[in-house]
Amino acid sequence: MLFEFSTPIQKLDWKGCDANIYVKRDDLIGFSFGGNKVRIAAQYLEDMRAKGCDCMIAYGSTRSNMCRVAANMCCGENIPCYVVTALSEGEELKDTFNSIMVDCFGARIRYCRKDNVAGTISELIEELKAKGYRPYYIFGDIYGKGNEDTAARAYEKAYKEILDFEKESGVSFDGIFLASGTGMTQGGLIRGQKKHGGNARITGISISREREPGIKAVAGYAAEPAENIDFNDEYRLGGYAQYDDEVRLVINDMMKYHGIPMDTTYTGKAFAGMLKWLKKYGSSYKNVLFIHTGGTPLFFDGIDVLKKQKTL
Amino acid sequence: MLFEFSTPIQKLDWKGCDANIYVKRDDLIGFSFGGNKVRIAAQYLEDMRAKGCDCMIAYGSTRSNMCRVAANMCCGENIPCYVVTALSEGEELKDTFNSIMVDCFGARIRYCRKDNVAGTISELIEELKAKGYRPYYIFGDIYGKGNEDTAARAYEKAYKEILDFEKESGVSFDGIFLASGTGMTQGGLIRGQKKHGGNARITGISISREREPGIKAVAGYAAEPAENIDFNDEYRLGGYAQYDDEVRLVINDMMKYHGIPMDTTYTGKAFAGMLKWLKKYGSSYKNVLFIHTGGTPLFFDGIDVLKKQKTL
Repeated sequence: MLFEFSTPIQKLDWKGCDANIYVKRDDLIGFSFGGNKVRIAAQYLEDMRAKGCDCMIAYGSTRSNMCRVAANMCCGENIPCYVVTALSEGEELKDTFNSIMVDCFGARIRYCRKDNVAGTISELIEELKAKGYRPYYIFGDIYGKGNEDTAARAYEKAYKEILDFEKESGVSFDGIFLASGTGMTQGGLIRGQKKHGGNARITGISISREREPGIKAVAGYAAEPAENIDFNDEYRLGGYAQYDDEVRLVINDMMKYHGIPMDTTYTGKAFAGMLKWLKKYGSSYKNVLFIHTGGTPLFFDGIDVLKKQKTL
Repeated sequence: MLFEFSTPIQKLDWKGCDANIYVKRDDLIGFSFGGNKVRIAAQYLEDMRAKGCDCMIAYGSTRSNMCRVAANMCCGENIPCYVVTALSEGEELKDTFNSIMVDCFGARIRYCRKDNVAGTISELIEELKAKGYRPYYIFGDIYGKGNEDTAARAYEKAYKEILDFEKESGVSFDGIFLASGTGMTQGGLIRGQKKHGGNARITGISISREREPGIKAVAGYAAEPAENIDFNDEYRLGGYAQYDDEVRLVINDMMKYHGIPMDTTYTGKAFAGMLKWLKKYGSSYKNVLFIHTGGTPLFFDGIDVLKKQKTL
């Protein structure tokens, strides 16, 4: 069912940045609107089978691309899928294209309070076991630990595509940037570099976590000590799903001048952060690569961010 | 600015059809959500420049992928763009993601009655000339004739990718199918086959026109006599933008089991038509290729078509 190919790397003619910016178009992976989570969910599915499990549990917000992709893959293979979504106290439940699709793909959604995720996962696992299922929680144990290797494998492999591009094109990247949320994509890239070589500094632009927990999360996936992780929390704008006018501007410019959709929660926010990072720290950088980790449904949720271009 | 690559051809594990179905994923072209109109608009832009014009006029409905792509390309290159949209008498104007983006890309939209398209185009051309512009109407003269060669060039070229796939994979297509609307994509493929060879029968599944005007339109782009055009109008379901439960079913199955978005106006409707065509006429067909001509924004407009999958 799954459809993978090596995704293209595109040079952007981006104004106002001294470095050459390249984009790895993982948003063009041809399953469920693509994105990093397609590569990662494929690893989970493989691991689930290897472990003899028959029922998947994913966890994420209503905006989660992972939950959409996991639910879509499970639907395609007739595997029961459960999605646990935590809400903050008083948070109003708001549908997104991702959450609508999770529901349409037949995943059962269970809501819980943010301080009761482990308890909810634990209850769900027991319920499913009592029904005769062998449930597989993508993140590992009920506290979300223990399955880092599986997730990290996806971008350990994908990193090879970046190296291949460098060899074929003669372009050498000084830095690789991406939206860093769970840490699994960045962790995987770091593993890939350790395994396959290469010199680019891999910097995660935090879209949610503060420095300390952020580094800890990436380090877990990278299987590296914290001091080896480049993780920047200066552009998190107060936390998950928060954004500002510079993020809006990036999304407008990216769509209008390059025909590339981005979103306020992950890619647009991280790209805007990367531009500020480069101004502040990147004067020596000549070539940088931004990993477009997908999220097309979120672009359509946020269509109001697009503003009318002044006509000539 | 434009980003093109040879798009992948994917074998679908599609139930309930005797032939092997392959899909050419032109929806994965990495500019403005891809689709056939990216290839075609790129040809228009090149032709416009060659003719020394400096201002583009497109024509299409509020659902038009062509209008979105043309407006996006023009925006990216600072070219003034006008979009003429005809409304039937009493038709209520309803925004789509495509029409919202056309507006955001700074294109000026002019509405007209369906019986006054030529008059409106003519007026607009005169107005622009009076302002010192050299306008370029993508379809040619005010009656929409005369620029068939430019549009057809896009799929004359793309056809080569299909032949290359056949050579590399050893798969030989008995039929190539696609949504046939304006006729420019089908016409281009027919030219490509004449130029490069190959044996597949190229059948347009009409999503709008009846047989006679449909064949005439394709023949114009193909530069072939009408008798050489395979154009089927049995699955047009009453006309443009009309669809039925079988179209809904295709869209559900395609997204849920294959992770591929389709829409009710073009791709989903044509794919459903192809399946019926194959049942009726295609018993000798072993391998068929469906061209996925894009339209991701239309998938999101029609998200209500997705129905909740029964959980296991």
